[in-house]
Amino acid sequence: MAKTVTPAENAQLKDIIAHAKEYGFVYPSSEIYDGLQAVYDYGAYGVELKNNLKRLWWETMTRVHENIVGIDAAIFMHPTTWKASGHVDSFNDPMIDNKDSKKRYRADVLVEEHAAKLEKEGKEEEAKQLTAALARLLEAEDLAGVRDLIVNTGIACPISGTTNWTDVRQFNLMFSTQVGSVAEDASTIYLRPETAQGIFVNFLNVQKTARMKVPFGIAQIGKAFRNEIVARQFIFRMREFEQMEMQFFVRPGTELDWYKQWSETRMNWHLALGTPAEKLRKHDHEKLAHYANAAMDIEYEFPFGFKEVEGIHSRTDFDLKSHQEFSKKKQQYFDPEVNQNYIPYVIETSIGADRLFLLTLCNAFTEEKSEEKSRTYLKFHPAIAPVKAAILPLTKKDGLPEKAKEIVDLLKYDFNIIYEDAASIGKRYARQDLIGTPFCIAVDHQTLEDNTVTIRHRDTTEQERVSISELHGRIAEATSFRRIFEKI
Amino acid sequence: MAKTVTPAENAQLKDIIAHAKEYGFVYPSSEIYDGLQAVYDYGAYGVELKNNLKRLWWETMTRVHENIVGIDAAIFMHPTTWKASGHVDSFNDPMIDNKDSKKRYRADVLVEEHAAKLEKEGKEEEAKQLTAALARLLEAEDLAGVRDLIVNTGIACPISGTTNWTDVRQFNLMFSTQVGSVAEDASTIYLRPETAQGIFVNFLNVQKTARMKVPFGIAQIGKAFRNEIVARQFIFRMREFEQMEMQFFVRPGTELDWYKQWSETRMNWHLALGTPAEKLRKHDHEKLAHYANAAMDIEYEFPFGFKEVEGIHSRTDFDLKSHQEFSKKKQQYFDPEVNQNYIPYVIETSIGADRLFLLTLCNAFTEEKSEEKSRTYLKFHPAIAPVKAAILPLTKKDGLPEKAKEIVDLLKYDFNIIYEDAASIGKRYARQDLIGTPFCIAVDHQTLEDNTVTIRHRDTTEQERVSISELHGRIAEATSFRRIFEKI
Repeated sequence: MAKTVTPAENAQLKDIIAHAKEYGFVYPSSEIYDGLQAVYDYGAYGVELKNNLKRLWWETMTRVHENIVGIDAAIFMHPTTWKASGHVDSFNDPMIDNKDSKKRYRADVLVEEHAAKLEKEGKEEEAKQLTAALARLLEAEDLAGVRDLIVNTGIACPISGTTNWTDVRQFNLMFSTQVGSVAEDASTIYLRPETAQGIFVNFLNVQKTARMKVPFGIAQIGKAFRNEIVARQFIFRMREFEQMEMQFFVRPGTELDWYKQWSETRMNWHLALGTPAEKLRKHDHEKLAHYANAAMDIEYEFPFGFKEVEGIHSRTDFDLKSHQEFSKKKQQYFDPEVNQNYIPYVIETSIGADRLFLLTLCNAFTEEKSEEKSRTYLKFHPAIAPVKAAILPLTKKDGLPEKAKEIVDLLKYDFNIIYEDAASIGKRYARQDLIGTPFCIAVDHQTLEDNTVTIRHRDTTEQERVSISELHGRIAEATSFRRIFEKI
Repeated sequence: MAKTVTPAENAQLKDIIAHAKEYGFVYPSSEIYDGLQAVYDYGAYGVELKNNLKRLWWETMTRVHENIVGIDAAIFMHPTTWKASGHVDSFNDPMIDNKDSKKRYRADVLVEEHAAKLEKEGKEEEAKQLTAALARLLEAEDLAGVRDLIVNTGIACPISGTTNWTDVRQFNLMFSTQVGSVAEDASTIYLRPETAQGIFVNFLNVQKTARMKVPFGIAQIGKAFRNEIVARQFIFRMREFEQMEMQFFVRPGTELDWYKQWSETRMNWHLALGTPAEKLRKHDHEKLAHYANAAMDIEYEFPFGFKEVEGIHSRTDFDLKSHQEFSKKKQQYFDPEVNQNYIPYVIETSIGADRLFLLTLCNAFTEEKSEEKSRTYLKFHPAIAPVKAAILPLTKKDGLPEKAKEIVDLLKYDFNIIYEDAASIGKRYARQDLIGTPFCIAVDHQTLEDNTVTIRHRDTTEQERVSISELHGRIAEATSFRRIFEKI
């Protein structure tokens, strides 16, 4: 049977979004109230997939690496944290309003989109000059200049069609709220825009209480929040999202060696999870953030192009030094090997859990088409598949359901298992394909005689007869994290 | 050796707080900036303990019970959600300010504390009358009456000592923030004050995409936020906290049977985890919330008295019905067994992850005192202990560290393991006791000869000699969730 596999690069994002909604992976948030822009909820299979990815990352960090421990810092932090980190002063996007349409835009995005249009029209030199001019103005923080650029280039509002623009102003991306009762001690606090600072302010707490010696790392998984003006591409850029960050504290001067090592280690992790090498690439930052002396992204080729999934940054001692200044508390480590006190340098690995989820979904989404029939399935690595096995009695009678339930009881405490006895076996296989279950276990009349079952494999649709007593071991072997850890 | 065990009921909360800080379980949030009131961070051992408790709860719900699936809804929800749930209108505390000290208080707490004082002075009848009067006024939402009660009873501000009080006003406990850019589509949204509504608004999404049939449940773990005026007792009442909630959807008329069953199932879960029966009690609500037709708490005897850890509530069809009204979208289920459409009734089990953490810590905290020496240890159930085993070479030479590292490699992918080679073996045992590690594995010269090690057991301090090849199985058996699941 000739098959034509349509790989993920051709799959449209809208097909994946529709699949995610229909098969219980991702729903728009508060959908019965017509949703909340750039916020999503994870459904029954989505939460299992996301939890598996989070646990895999966590155990990679804290178990494979003996010198990394975790923490779980609160979303609410003392507001001075964000003064010290620079977010209060400079975590801004430049915005501009069109006076006729009353619509607001990111000024830089307006210019970039115009440049992209010029490029499509073959005016490449003009496009290049425009983006260069924008970069110079942003670098100089010349907002009036950005406005002039927009007006002089004749960039019009897509709604009103006019160039009747307001000034460009900075808009801080942090969400703020009031804590405490108003009269007594109310104060403005922020929802953290990144999890990293929760690690930095706890650096000495963790180092002392977990008795860590430099070099060592602190890992954390948690929510962060950004009031994105332009939020789009499904769960790729959300206003509420989850980060998995690890800050690795090293002796000053050794940071670039560690940076190189972590860049390789993290790339290997993605490969070990089954992401094809040709869909991943490294992207070195041309322009470094004020705190970094080296930085790169690991990019994945989403249906909308190569985009950042994970960042590896050499953050120097910027954060700890800044917290030392603002808190007036020494953030130093005494290194007995060199008999010195110093503020450690930091290598950060930062991955978006939601982006990793989207990568995993895009990479798994497979449509096979042949002349006779077509099939859609999610080819998740078994270790992270939301459901590990479906137990399916061939018919609803003759004691087959009872026998199938015995197998469920044998497996259910160690693996996420589904039992289903409605519809034809073919339909039930198809349904498990759609949620990415690697093993379908059919219970038939022969099972009652010799305690064997059929395992039907998701990716090949091949079937094999095995003894019930082998099932636990087979599934454990295929779904074990250990097999991934050993490849890193 | 005569031992005097000081059980948890006598341990002071302050000892437990100090222990939690010193040994890496819980730190005040943003401590280098002198903390943020009623917010805490979990340290290296705290996060492992909390994750184990969360995973145990999750797997209890979604694996032991085949008709329960999970979701992970966002913290941000459409604001109409909180209109429908009643939180916008009535999630309030009555507050009063003292005009001299400028301090704000919860009016009801002022009265209750005064009543408690009267009771201590032997004026029991007076105390009883005061609390009864307060209850009547709150029931009638008579805030002016509450103020009169405070003034007439002569309740003074503890700071200024005066009865110069403002009016009593309602204070909404939800945190709000602005989403979107101001010009275009900014709107006020709330940080969810409970996770339950994320389940209710997704009821049909989950029912359809996961093909669930009533009765079935939806489980969720996630953060919630309340701007508590009086937040205290360590992590018992925080402004940012984590809930583990399961909403179980049933046919109307069957809800009280399910309520009874879930009340028992949940109590058994706490007992299976090793919490002594005499430290737990049921507390039926005398006064039911507007949405409930039955409700109870499972209370634990904390150092500060019996307090709620988990609530089991029969919420009727209040929430789904209200969302149907506000969203204009039918929230009905067609039940093929009775051939009827209906809005299901709901039984909720709701437990605070942080409260369960505190219960676990209080229950584990053990001080043994004898004439020769004293010992403090945390007797966690091995299944939830943050570290499962410590691998300890007796000396740092003769190849013992290398042999010990081989054992680490054998175990580290499946269990959270610590390796330590500094200090005397006695000191290292003591340190593991303080973080609650159930097994200390000593590697000595005999190990090099016959591949056996010493296991030292935390609770008894007894030691036994076992083969290295037995270690994985022994630890797996002791730390397995299955042993807990089978007791429920």
